Amino acid sequence: MLKINNERFLDMMTAQATIGGTPEGGLSRPALSSTDQEVRNWFETRIRENNLEYAQDGAGNQTATLRSANDDAKTVVIGSHLDSVPNGGRFDGALGVIAAFEALLTIKDAKIELPFHLTVINFTDEEGTNRGLLGSSAFTGLLKQGELDNPRMGRDYFESGANMLGISEQTFFDAAINPYDLMGYIEVHIEQGTRLESQNLDIGVVTSIVGIRSYWLTFIGEAAHSGTSPMSGRKDAFLGASDFAHQARQLVMEKFTPGTANFGSVESQPGAFNIVPAQCQLALEFRHGDDTSFDAMNEELLALAQEVADTWGLRLRIKPSDYVRPAPMADTMIAAVESACSALSLSSTRLMSFAGHDAQAMAQITPSVMYFVPSVDGISHNPKEYTLDEDCINAANVMLQTVLQLAQA
Amino acid sequence: MLKINNERFLDMMTAQATIGGTPEGGLSRPALSSTDQEVRNWFETRIRENNLEYAQDGAGNQTATLRSANDDAKTVVIGSHLDSVPNGGRFDGALGVIAAFEALLTIKDAKIELPFHLTVINFTDEEGTNRGLLGSSAFTGLLKQGELDNPRMGRDYFESGANMLGISEQTFFDAAINPYDLMGYIEVHIEQGTRLESQNLDIGVVTSIVGIRSYWLTFIGEAAHSGTSPMSGRKDAFLGASDFAHQARQLVMEKFTPGTANFGSVESQPGAFNIVPAQCQLALEFRHGDDTSFDAMNEELLALAQEVADTWGLRLRIKPSDYVRPAPMADTMIAAVESACSALSLSSTRLMSFAGHDAQAMAQITPSVMYFVPSVDGISHNPKEYTLDEDCINAANVMLQTVLQLAQA
Repeated sequence: MLKINNERFLDMMTAQATIGGTPEGGLSRPALSSTDQEVRNWFETRIRENNLEYAQDGAGNQTATLRSANDDAKTVVIGSHLDSVPNGGRFDGALGVIAAFEALLTIKDAKIELPFHLTVINFTDEEGTNRGLLGSSAFTGLLKQGELDNPRMGRDYFESGANMLGISEQTFFDAAINPYDLMGYIEVHIEQGTRLESQNLDIGVVTSIVGIRSYWLTFIGEAAHSGTSPMSGRKDAFLGASDFAHQARQLVMEKFTPGTANFGSVESQPGAFNIVPAQCQLALEFRHGDDTSFDAMNEELLALAQEVADTWGLRLRIKPSDYVRPAPMADTMIAAVESACSALSLSSTRLMSFAGHDAQAMAQITPSVMYFVPSVDGISHNPKEYTLDEDCINAANVMLQTVLQLAQA
Repeated sequence: MLKINNERFLDMMTAQATIGGTPEGGLSRPALSSTDQEVRNWFETRIRENNLEYAQDGAGNQTATLRSANDDAKTVVIGSHLDSVPNGGRFDGALGVIAAFEALLTIKDAKIELPFHLTVINFTDEEGTNRGLLGSSAFTGLLKQGELDNPRMGRDYFESGANMLGISEQTFFDAAINPYDLMGYIEVHIEQGTRLESQNLDIGVVTSIVGIRSYWLTFIGEAAHSGTSPMSGRKDAFLGASDFAHQARQLVMEKFTPGTANFGSVESQPGAFNIVPAQCQLALEFRHGDDTSFDAMNEELLALAQEVADTWGLRLRIKPSDYVRPAPMADTMIAAVESACSALSLSSTRLMSFAGHDAQAMAQITPSVMYFVPSVDGISHNPKEYTLDEDCINAANVMLQTVLQLAQA
């Protein structure tokens, strides 16, 4: 059975990790930063020295393409992203690009004729230094005019970074590909959790990338003097907001597992020792991979918030924030990954991805699939993020075999 | 029975309320502001035109003294403060000074010979524009060097305000009186609560001014991804902190009524929708008028915080903030006020004061008492603060009769 070149692959993994590498063993490659530019140059050089077709689109997405003999063939895209969060780890994203690239090189070396073009992609700014899933949203035509008006690091950072790459805000909107030209998308990523590790499994095949919905909930009561107002008569916004958080947690754990909810931010006003909180703003975010459950969570959580507000004599103001629908992976693609695992005698399970990934955007326009390899202790977005060489090699071999499965289908 | 001059008294109440008066009917006289200076000038003029002995001490406390024929007599001090919070009400503090002044004028008019000197006082900055109970702390010698290093409105405000009054930081420390010269202190104040109003009572005799203790409690867990970390395994600092708040509330209501607790400020870190809170800082403040209960609350609340932190797998960091012991009022002085109420056929009850007052500082050096008159709807620190003329008149007549009771004792 065809296998990847372990040495070449691990050397590339090591080499990329030196770019933006931090003393703690992680790396800092925020999208459109100088270290991002450096890893892009490194990747372009690797592509060109292997005599592959190199391109950078208007969103800065870099591609290496191995053409099929059939000019009219569709394209299978494989890859992930080379950018990282500040002070992040060396596997998140990078493993997906390098494993895909190694799979392509192996196919090229073996002179295998594919019935489709095979394109390895490095998507720009998956992590959202400027805007989450920026490159894949542009590539899939999901990016909307105006969405780059207020990038997270500011317009100056965005504009000078884009300029460095020879692109601009407008070219991002030229990057949209014709979905008809695509045959599918495959992405491998570290799990960023402990489900595989705790069950001693090699591969987690993603059935769905969870939908994410978030709100600012403001509970509104009445300020009162902490001494002179009797405790039983208060309209304490903080107590109401936090009562909701605890009840919502119970609801989600009892009824919507494996869905999750989080209350990542909380702030009371006016915020003095001696004043009963008049307002409390709570950040609610919840996730589920199943459409029906996702919508039911939304309805039940908001109803609960209103009910708890009523109980405490509070008013409730709801301000929507992010809203991303669940992205189901394609059955045919899931089957291809599972066949690859079987062929390689690797154990696998099906699971949901609770984090967002470029596959989420790609799933909107082409049959897509993701799979995970284990992360030690589930640590991620952290210099301590680590995946064993053996699991990295599995990542690349499964990619290779999945592409070959699709070629035979 | 000797009674105050209602017209003169109410005219003074109206006159003082025009100084710093706001369109909504309240007043803004932050200590050491120009409106504070204005009301001081007004009060000095009232004192001098009545041929009373006027003085201003090194802390800016203004006094009007009616001398006893006995030069060696001790002094009974009566009064409160003429400063207000920004956009506050016209009764908080002012009623106590004007009622005391009217009682003194009535005694002077009646040519009653007192066995003690009688001093009406306007304490500087009770409200804490610069530092809470500033004037009474200086008067009683409780103010410590260094406590004026960082006044709330800043050093510039403090220094230029003090300069306007002809005083300076150092003169504040010269204001301490010899406790041996004092016989007692009496203060009347609006209730700033609804206990009197709801029971239809005229006078609330304060048995104790509550002790106040506050802490910053920081619950420390672990940041985690809101999607990929399973809900049951999280160390969510916000859920721990808020669980403590709810349990602490129950504990105080069940075991320490009429003591109170408040959680006036809460903040999670790092504070993002998609990150499980790693830290949560909660402001805890509690109050009780009884020494033993106050200490028991302290012990039980901190033990509960640790217990709840343990339950959620969190660490706990405790940083003390304010700490004021309960200030019991003197039995002899309480008895004098109650006798005055009886003589005037006014209904009364005993209660704790849950807010701080100048009597708290005075109680440290001389037998002291406070009493309250009703506030409509308990509203205070607000332009809508209101006390009926009839209750204001009661305030002044009870002061007059209490002083006369002490004279007969």
